[in-house]
This record gives sequence, C-alpha cells and structure tokens, in this order.
Amino acid sequence: MTEEMNLGGSCIREQDGVAAGTRNATDKAIISKIDHTLLAPTATPSQIIALCQEALSFGFASVCVPPRYVELCAKQLGGNIPVCTVIGFPLGYNATSVKLAEAARALTDGAEELDMVIHVGALLMGDVDSVREEIALMKKLAGSRIVKVIVETCLLDDEAKMAACRAVTDAGADFIKTSTGFSTGGATAADVALLRKYVGSGVRVKASGGIRTAEQAAVMVRAGADRLGMSSAVSAFGLASVRRD
Amino acid sequence: MTEEMNLGGSCIREQDGVAAGTRNATDKAIISKIDHTLLAPTATPSQIIALCQEALSFGFASVCVPPRYVELCAKQLGGNIPVCTVIGFPLGYNATSVKLAEAARALTDGAEELDMVIHVGALLMGDVDSVREEIALMKKLAGSRIVKVIVETCLLDDEAKMAACRAVTDAGADFIKTSTGFSTGGATAADVALLRKYVGSGVRVKASGGIRTAEQAAVMVRAGADRLGMSSAVSAFGLASVRRD
Repeated sequence: MTEEMNLGGSCIREQDGVAAGTRNATDKAIISKIDHTLLAPTATPSQIIALCQEALSFGFASVCVPPRYVELCAKQLGGNIPVCTVIGFPLGYNATSVKLAEAARALTDGAEELDMVIHVGALLMGDVDSVREEIALMKKLAGSRIVKVIVETCLLDDEAKMAACRAVTDAGADFIKTSTGFSTGGATAADVALLRKYVGSGVRVKASGGIRTAEQAAVMVRAGADRLGMSSAVSAFGLASVRRD
Repeated sequence: MTEEMNLGGSCIREQDGVAAGTRNATDKAIISKIDHTLLAPTATPSQIIALCQEALSFGFASVCVPPRYVELCAKQLGGNIPVCTVIGFPLGYNATSVKLAEAARALTDGAEELDMVIHVGALLMGDVDSVREEIALMKKLAGSRIVKVIVETCLLDDEAKMAACRAVTDAGADFIKTSTGFSTGGATAADVALLRKYVGSGVRVKASGGIRTAEQAAVMVRAGADRLGMSSAVSAFGLASVRRD
C-alpha cells in the first residue's frame, strides 16, 4: 500500500508502515546518489531539457545523457548539477584514440563525469594491461573530473570481474560501474558486493542497468553502491507530482 | 529435409526438391551479398581471424567488424575482401566530429566500407537537415570508399523512414541500411521494400538485424536488398564443413 502526501513542497511516500520522515530521509539519501539517466537513441532535446529540470528539482547526483546533448545540459544546469556522459558506449570496442577524442569533446562541451566502457573482448582474452592503460589515459585526460569505468558484468565471469577491479584500481579511476543497460543483464547485488570487495579503497561503485524501483535502488545501496544509474527515478520515488517552482 | 553434399570442395545443400545446381547458384548469389559480421562486444582477435578465414573461403562481400579490429582484418584479408566497420555504433548519438574521427581512424586502419548510425533523435524531432549534413560529411571523408547509413527502422514510423531515405539520397551515400542488430528489431521485408522505393536510384539497400537463415536472406533479397548483414551466414548456408586450403 502506497500513500502519497505532499508536505512542505516535496512529495513523500509512506509505505508499508515505514514512518514518513524515515522513508523520506532514506529516499533522499538514495536520490542524492542517482545519476538521472536518459540514454535512449530516440532521446530528443525536449526530453533532455525535462530531465535537467527534474534533476534541478529533486537533487540527483548528476544527469547522464548522450554525448550529443552535453552542451545543452550544461546550459540547462548552469553548474548546479554535474553533467555525466558516456564514452565508447555501449560496446566499448572503439579505438582508444577515438574514445579519448570523444571524452575531450565531452569535457569541452561541459561534462564533469565520463562513464566509459572498457573493451570487454580484450579483458576476456586476458589483455588486462591494455584495459588498464586505456583507463589511465582517460583519467589523465579527465584530470579532476570523474571517470567511471563500465565493465559490463553480465558478460564477465568472476575471474574477469576481479581482473577488471584491478585494472580500474591501478589506473586510478574514480568509479567502477556494473553495466551499460544495453547488454544481456544489469546490476545485481552480488556483483555490486563483489566489485566493492575487490576494488581499492579509493574506488567507488556505481550500480546501473535494470534498477527500476526504490526498493531495487535500496538493495544496491545496501550491497555497497555509492552511485546508481536510473532512467526511471522520478516514478520510482514517486516524485512525478512535484513541480519545480 | 536437408541433405548436405560435398562437391568440388564446396558444400552444397539440396533442399525440398530444388536442384542442387540451382540452389547452389542461388545461394552463391546471396552469399556474395553478405557482409560477414561479428560485432559482439566480447569478440576476441582469434574469433575475428576465423571470421576473415571464412570470408576468404566462401566469398562474402566483406567482413564487418568492430573498429578496434579493422587493422587486424586488413592484414588478414590482404586486400582480397574489403573490411567494413561501424561508426557511432549502435546508438548514433555521438558528436558528428567524433563520428568523423572514428571514420578517419578506420580508413587509416584499412576499412573500405563504413556503416554509420544516424542520430535517430534528430530525425524524430524533424531535424532532417542535420542528419543529411552529417552523412554528407561522412561521404566526403570516405571519398570512393563505401558509406552505408543505418537508420534503425524499428525506431521509426513510415514518415520518418521516408525522411531518412531523402537524407541518405541527398547526402550521396552509397547504401541505406535497416538496422544495427542491437535495438528492438531487425530487418523486415516490408521495410526493405519501403527503403528500396524511396531512396534514389544510386542508393543501394542493406538489410541487417535478425537474418539468421538462408530462407530469411532470400526473402530480403527478393524484397530488394542488395547487401545483407549476417552473423550466422556460415551455419545458415551450411558452409561449416568447408575448410580453407
């Protein structure tokens, strides 16, 4: 049973006996970890603008958008919320030089967070060095801007996941990220816990792919996720009725 | 009922009363139109080398591989069969400058055919001009090399498909191509016929996405496809028992 109440201008959902204040604090903590995401190939400028307005209203961690919309988002958000975009997405087998060119363009356009996809084929053939070197080049280019490394866990066995953790840690990236949301599977709590366990203490974990409800988001956070990628955060957290002033 | 016979070193399949010679001629004609394709993110160099060996054995139109493997394929094929690769694949919303950088790198590495993805979001919002201009820039860069333009028909209504045909024709591209194989649907005979009808006479049609059998391939050719993208051509045409000398 879900009951929606509008208190103090923000929408709070009371659910299954959890006190409204508790739920609100928990939800707010989770919402602040969400990269509010729209990566559909059909996305239009008006949809991207709406995404930005929602992000300004609800306090998401960032908006995550296609490279072509970074400049538009940077203007919309005016530095209040960072723009995240994707590099070599979603298949990761672009040339390293092309990924770097894509990243440079995104940074010029105003991106502050780069979610890059590794070359999974290289990892699977045991060429961890080239994976690490590519990430290191990306981090060098990004400087103080955030680099998240998508390893596409659904395509990896546990050994490959651990190798990916080492590559991401050794390359100095900021985050390891489970999934693109465009492959055969998304984030699982088990994978989040595994990544959490095997990356270095300086590396955070982003869970993404298939996280569609507040409950799924909470599970990922409990498993160790510091950041969440979600396309449906507004409906998942019952924020749809809130309007920006 | 399918019977396999090995005649003169090539595998010929006699099926449902079609004379072996006739079937063979038909199959050979179709096989010569196939871009022998491996675009999985997990593809490894050894799989790519096997793909090239099959292409050399069976006379496919090209091999179609990830950008990162163009150089490897060019060496393997030695100019006997063209290397095709993908640009802005599969989502198409990369910056135009990045797509061009990716294409330039691919041409340097030895690609002779470029399968680029349009920005579907731009087409859907009616910005056909930017779609046409991007294709024209790609064709200018490619020169005499072939540019195929993937419009991702499964995401378009008929009006948008016709607009895509105009953009591809006016921009001077060589092919219009139905699908990436990574979206919600692949080639249909109806879409192939529609594209065939609305592109200019200088533009050929490539059907791709979900074509897994010889029969499906034949349907696409009858609908007007000049080229086919297939990942399973070897099994579809019963070529698996043939070994390269």
